[in-house]
Amino acid sequence: MSYQIAVLAGDGIGPEVMAEARKVLSAVEARFSLDIEYSEYDVGGAAIDNHGCPLPEATLKGCEAADAILFGSVGGPKWEHLPPNDQPERGALLPLRGHFELFCNIRPAKLHSGLEHMSPLRSDISSQGFDVLCVRELTGGIYFGKPKGRQGEGEEEEAFDTMRYSRKEIRRIAKIAFEAAQGRRKKVTSVDKANVLACSVLWREVVEEVAKDFPDVELEHIYIDNATMQLLRRPFDFDVMLCSNLFGDIISDEIAMLTGSMGLLSSVSLNSDGFGLYEPAGGSAPDIAGQGIANPVAQILSAALLLRHSLKLEAAATAIETAVAQALGDGYLTGELLPASERANAKSTSEMGDYIAQAV
Amino acid sequence: MSYQIAVLAGDGIGPEVMAEARKVLSAVEARFSLDIEYSEYDVGGAAIDNHGCPLPEATLKGCEAADAILFGSVGGPKWEHLPPNDQPERGALLPLRGHFELFCNIRPAKLHSGLEHMSPLRSDISSQGFDVLCVRELTGGIYFGKPKGRQGEGEEEEAFDTMRYSRKEIRRIAKIAFEAAQGRRKKVTSVDKANVLACSVLWREVVEEVAKDFPDVELEHIYIDNATMQLLRRPFDFDVMLCSNLFGDIISDEIAMLTGSMGLLSSVSLNSDGFGLYEPAGGSAPDIAGQGIANPVAQILSAALLLRHSLKLEAAATAIETAVAQALGDGYLTGELLPASERANAKSTSEMGDYIAQAV
Ligand SMILES: CC(C)[C@H](C(=O)O)[C@@H](O)C(=O)O
Ligand SMILES: CC(C)[C@H](C(=O)O)[C@@H](O)C(=O)O
Repeated sequence: MSYQIAVLAGDGIGPEVMAEARKVLSAVEARFSLDIEYSEYDVGGAAIDNHGCPLPEATLKGCEAADAILFGSVGGPKWEHLPPNDQPERGALLPLRGHFELFCNIRPAKLHSGLEHMSPLRSDISSQGFDVLCVRELTGGIYFGKPKGRQGEGEEEEAFDTMRYSRKEIRRIAKIAFEAAQGRRKKVTSVDKANVLACSVLWREVVEEVAKDFPDVELEHIYIDNATMQLLRRPFDFDVMLCSNLFGDIISDEIAMLTGSMGLLSSVSLNSDGFGLYEPAGGSAPDIAGQGIANPVAQILSAALLLRHSLKLEAAATAIETAVAQALGDGYLTGELLPASERANAKSTSEMGDYIAQAV
Repeated sequence: MSYQIAVLAGDGIGPEVMAEARKVLSAVEARFSLDIEYSEYDVGGAAIDNHGCPLPEATLKGCEAADAILFGSVGGPKWEHLPPNDQPERGALLPLRGHFELFCNIRPAKLHSGLEHMSPLRSDISSQGFDVLCVRELTGGIYFGKPKGRQGEGEEEEAFDTMRYSRKEIRRIAKIAFEAAQGRRKKVTSVDKANVLACSVLWREVVEEVAKDFPDVELEHIYIDNATMQLLRRPFDFDVMLCSNLFGDIISDEIAMLTGSMGLLSSVSLNSDGFGLYEPAGGSAPDIAGQGIANPVAQILSAALLLRHSLKLEAAATAIETAVAQALGDGYLTGELLPASERANAKSTSEMGDYIAQAV
């Protein structure tokens, strides 16, 4: 069996960390005698520079031909002056999500034991640990709802966006959240703003319906404003958080920051055929790009998730995750995860990749 | 000169903390020889029980006749089964905001010195303190935008909400943020999602225009997802945060929780005539209602803000704030602000009110 992966490294630290993920994938291929082919395509700022647009036709075609997309990160100061529609993040990520109908975004955020001090939370809170999975709807809501635009003139000119959700859209993402909860601590917290939004009222209705098929899973509803607060006080009380597109954008970033170690977190965006886009949760970090100090773990773990979810290579995925756990357990860490006094022991991007590839 | 205040105590701890605010107002009246008349009206759950709706006509008329509204809090488990539109929070607060065009919501969140341990943030972050003012647009955006509703049938049935902002609406709230910043640390952080929302693109444009009239104020833009994160890492870097209705709902709650002492925070909602609604930032806290342990400080400080902003009684407002600062400085605190080991020294709701009234 042979597999095709479209590799979209992108901007900033993207290419550096992608190189390490490739190293680890090679090690996995050797160990499990896999036949994986990689095709690299420009995306984001790099694509703007080389082809004039953040998601060239060739890149899209390449992704269509592949079994999954391994994505790095896009964006940087160089392209920030462009109109929003043409910028790397929006111009690449949103069309990719829309084109492949990647409606399901999954972002785990777990406080790694030994790294509790990285969390910005008070030590008596972070010492209790937490392990939250954000399940975010990714192709609906106010991101894609029509109409969206401007009308009128002078001071009366107004802009408008439409938040829109159908029962069908809500049901398919809710199911995924409940299924995920069954394999975890059996609790779903559905985040909405049902005291203001018509979409949230429908959201609640459908989520309640779906819950009936999962009697073993506890369901609670929480308003987005309250969710943002409760995560600060008692993150350990949450298991799976089910969110619409906009609220999931906020919650998944909040929980990522609560771990304090974004360089370890990756994210999966899937469609209903199991085709997916796999990327680190952090951004392109232009400030540290090119210095060989970026943490490649999130990108490496993205590769593991790709093997698991799109290629169904569970053993290979686990091998990578075990190797990563070993590296972290051995105190093999990049600088941002170390207290200032221990930075001298920081490992470089490529040292991390070598070590993890070796461990595989 | 005589003044009229409409008093809407509401549900849960509302009536208890309102009683203390009234005590303190009486003390201020005596000291400054003021002539303030109070008219009490039902609102929220109490109004549903007594009149069948959360904002009865009599309450609205009473507010119209007054110079300002002193609001307690509304809501509780008793009314949670009602359809969203009829629930106390939504059915009272949103119509009041709309009816009086209270477009400007101001919520200060400051870490009080001596209470840093209350913050859920890591001590090396909270020890640096922070003082953030959230200026939130309150009568536009996705809260009030039309159309809002449902259409279609079966699994295709969908709900929709419209986010809508005009230049005029953005300009008037932006001006207030910049004016506020001039009296503070001269920095405005405008929160948006301009990489996705048409409303946010217009928001940015107008905020940039307004900024030209305030050359002494620094302006930065931040995406809502990133704002939620950066507040956790470096809250001290923010001064005034300028937000649309929905994003302000989230940010103002997040910064309130970051102080860890919601019982000290109040909020002002103003229209362009200086008419306003003043309320504590916390909710009706039904779990502790009736026990005499709720912190009345936020309600008392709401009264001070009312005196300042709507009645233009600066000296009287300052007298209350000084008295509150004295109480807190003397370690005169309700239980939730004390470490478990010192709870025996906790002051009751009425002891707090007495002490502050006395100090005035
Ligand atoms: C870049 C942006 C459009 C995107 C989003 O808002 O979805 C990003 O914040 C994310 O979460 O992947
Ligand atoms: C009760 C609710 C409608 C309200 C809002 O979302 O504005 C509340 O959360 C607030 O912030 O005052």
